[in-house]
Amino acid sequence: MIGVDVGGTTIAAGLVTSDGEVIDERRIAAEPEARATLATVESLIEDLRRRAGGRVVRGIGVGVPGPVDAGRVAAEVPHAPDLANRPMAELLHARFALPAYVDNDVNALALGEWRFGAGQGVRSLVVLAAGTGFGCGIILEGRLVRGVNGFGGEFGHTPVKFDGPRCWCGGRGCLAIYASGRGIAEAARARVAADPAAALVAAAGEVEAITTALVFRLAAAGDPTAAAVVDEACRALGAMIATMVNGLNPEAIVVTGGVAESLVALDKRILAAAAEYAFPRALGAARITIVPADKRTTMRGAAALVAYELERNSVM
Amino acid sequence: MIGVDVGGTTIAAGLVTSDGEVIDERRIAAEPEARATLATVESLIEDLRRRAGGRVVRGIGVGVPGPVDAGRVAAEVPHAPDLANRPMAELLHARFALPAYVDNDVNALALGEWRFGAGQGVRSLVVLAAGTGFGCGIILEGRLVRGVNGFGGEFGHTPVKFDGPRCWCGGRGCLAIYASGRGIAEAARARVAADPAAALVAAAGEVEAITTALVFRLAAAGDPTAAAVVDEACRALGAMIATMVNGLNPEAIVVTGGVAESLVALDKRILAAAAEYAFPRALGAARITIVPADKRTTMRGAAALVAYELERNSVM
Repeated sequence: MIGVDVGGTTIAAGLVTSDGEVIDERRIAAEPEARATLATVESLIEDLRRRAGGRVVRGIGVGVPGPVDAGRVAAEVPHAPDLANRPMAELLHARFALPAYVDNDVNALALGEWRFGAGQGVRSLVVLAAGTGFGCGIILEGRLVRGVNGFGGEFGHTPVKFDGPRCWCGGRGCLAIYASGRGIAEAARARVAADPAAALVAAAGEVEAITTALVFRLAAAGDPTAAAVVDEACRALGAMIATMVNGLNPEAIVVTGGVAESLVALDKRILAAAAEYAFPRALGAARITIVPADKRTTMRGAAALVAYELERNSVM
Repeated sequence: MIGVDVGGTTIAAGLVTSDGEVIDERRIAAEPEARATLATVESLIEDLRRRAGGRVVRGIGVGVPGPVDAGRVAAEVPHAPDLANRPMAELLHARFALPAYVDNDVNALALGEWRFGAGQGVRSLVVLAAGTGFGCGIILEGRLVRGVNGFGGEFGHTPVKFDGPRCWCGGRGCLAIYASGRGIAEAARARVAADPAAALVAAAGEVEAITTALVFRLAAAGDPTAAAVVDEACRALGAMIATMVNGLNPEAIVVTGGVAESLVALDKRILAAAAEYAFPRALGAARITIVPADKRTTMRGAAALVAYELERNSVM
């Protein structure tokens, strides 16, 4: 399969085996507000296909940020506005005469964790992806939960605190403002905005230069401000794990995404937070894993999307 | 079908047609901590069956509070401890030689709303049931979400405020403490506990006599304490509607249960609260209805459970 990850900073496409191994790949830096994302994706696929030689490419899968409704990118993608409302799956199918599937990037990632990763062997799986934003992909009884118009799994933008602050999505008290990379950095900046002597500011140089990674590093070193932000991230994430555990009662939950690397060392705190909210028997039934993502996670997920769709639509 | 509702105050069984009409019924007051609930249920079924005359009873459905795992009552039911861990569906099947199904009462209620009520005609439905407690039933792509060991749909006990107060379930900041009957009454009592001159206390006679219905009545009459409690209920319920809308993106949401009668008049406030948290396009895709429940709602749901299982297991 060819798996494509339309990311905010990079568009990456890979030739992925049925075992999830990436045997060839092409990456290109994404331009901000690119107007030719589809053409870039097509050229990467074209390249890979040419280089695939005699290998059979069974299909094309693409992961795109934001909701995707039946292969059509439903809402505006900030860094790829040309994709909005275009029937991308149909266009790729027409261009390459191959089965082509497009879905939300975290839905693809979830299918990848299910097929190749930490979510293998279960019939119901929730994947929570803490990256720059916060996404979620849900598989119940072997089916991806897409929802009626492509929003299925957007638990990153559901309130964990209904009287919490505004989120950039327009909502309020969303998980993303506590536990995503952007949310963590913004929360730290807000806490030290009026305190130029704060350790976070000293380490970053200026308030606006505070990164998520720095927040985790200073929290681990004992800085109380950074620690408070990280503590809130762990509690909010634990609350969402419990929401999934009590509400959907899955066999497995995988926490991953770009921020997961920093969360691995906090696993005991996150699980303790989850236990504060979850029914013990439902929690006990769920295998919970925190696994770092790498730059190929979504690409492999997009390939898993192809395998998922081909199997689902097979009448053999 | 025979539908049985094992409620906290009444155990009710009805002979229900395939259109959801209750053509005969028997009710019996539930004893607190009854040790013979199963025998009571069996005697009601026996009675109804005898009175059914020549009518064909296709099966027996039972709705029980709390999680039910594959026909076995999974956790302790406070008012019917004899049911805990018993394979109730199997026992009823053996006794009556009829297909017998047991599920969480709100799962049954959700199937009833889907088949006979406000949730008809959709493939994905979330039913939020605000009663004494707060339950939820979820149908996605035509399948009830039961979870891996019977907790599926317990969104009433997931945090809408992760730093909120303790819930009686052991969790924290659960929807139930804001928007269930028990939660609303307790919140009002807590607010006026130190204020014997409060209107709520004057109207109720004493703090402990404050009921949910009184809170709604005084809120409508302009009492600021009652209004604050009701306002929080509306906001928390709106937040959960948005959580369902963004996360599961269903075609329809039905809010019902014993408290729904009081919520109908607050529909604009609840929907406005939901809009504060939800993605507009996901919210726009969901038909949201607030409908009062009556004393036969769960009974009819239990009958719908029979129809659901018979159809699902049919190989015709």
